Amino acid sequence: MKIKSLIVFMIIFPSVLVAQNPTLETIFQRKSVRSYTERAISLDTLKILVKAGMAAPTGMNRQPWEFVVIYGKEEMKRLAEKIPGIKMLKEAQAAIVVAGNPELSQFWYEDCSAATQNILLAAESMGLGAVWTAGYPIEQRMNQIADALAIPLPYRPLCLIPIGYPKGPQQPKDKWKESKLHINRW
Amino acid sequence: MKIKSLIVFMIIFPSVLVAQNPTLETIFQRKSVRSYTERAISLDTLKILVKAGMAAPTGMNRQPWEFVVIYGKEEMKRLAEKIPGIKMLKEAQAAIVVAGNPELSQFWYEDCSAATQNILLAAESMGLGAVWTAGYPIEQRMNQIADALAIPLPYRPLCLIPIGYPKGPQQPKDKWKESKLHINRW
Repeated sequence: MKIKSLIVFMIIFPSVLVAQNPTLETIFQRKSVRSYTERAISLDTLKILVKAGMAAPTGMNRQPWEFVVIYGKEEMKRLAEKIPGIKMLKEAQAAIVVAGNPELSQFWYEDCSAATQNILLAAESMGLGAVWTAGYPIEQRMNQIADALAIPLPYRPLCLIPIGYPKGPQQPKDKWKESKLHINRW
Repeated sequence: MKIKSLIVFMIIFPSVLVAQNPTLETIFQRKSVRSYTERAISLDTLKILVKAGMAAPTGMNRQPWEFVVIYGKEEMKRLAEKIPGIKMLKEAQAAIVVAGNPELSQFWYEDCSAATQNILLAAESMGLGAVWTAGYPIEQRMNQIADALAIPLPYRPLCLIPIGYPKGPQQPKDKWKESKLHINRW
């Protein structure tokens, strides 16, 4: 009878059997992954990441963003050659550039940053590894990315995210610092 | 025998019984919640949100951020009076301000935006409702927030996030636009 109750409980509340809050787990497990296996990533998988990006909030709902997905051996090789400063591109199987339109919203870099964080968390949750590399506000890097991918003005690349399946297990940094938490006032 | 196998399967793979990817579900279900019930939020719960914030990536790992948590009826009333432009504060049970140090990192607003998105997703995953209201780059609003909470220069408030338990069910916006996805080049 006790076992029967347990089974009924499991059927009704299956979530108690997995992590208590898988979203928090993803947030705390996310790490910057810079080394990848040779396993390719499908366009369908990359589209899910971009969909996650477009689910971020934007100031006044302006959605001042565009996304460029790069994938495939030849395309990635070309990108790595054009942007030698981002060394992870040599191993990465894919990349996503998040670009924003400063003329459409004064909040474009905040909106694009929220989208980028969604992409990084989505990647972590799907067993992928990714890392945020800066475009904005580094003028030279933005121009390199824009040139490589024909991103037209006024759009500016906020960042470029190399992506791949992680080469090995990797621990997230513990960045919690109680001293940075202020209660009710500074 | 078949039922027994099913039970064994459920014990080994409980995750098949919940959503396939709860993190993606949170990302796609997150919405800006502007109306809240009178249910209070504990400091422990608010600390989890701040911990989620501090788990975001930062450029060169500078962590150029600080977090101010406001909670409690009296404190929230005082805040709502000091910043009348953020109407949600009248109903909100708590708020978090994410502030950054521009002198510590040129990427401070990107880092603080990623932290903010983590907080919004953590809130959604915990059944809370929250909304990103802008500080930066609106000088007047940043000064109001800084004055109300004694945030010292050079720290600047990127945003203020009112938080509460949502007053009713609310659907997320579907912002997916295929036209904003570019493959291999613009």
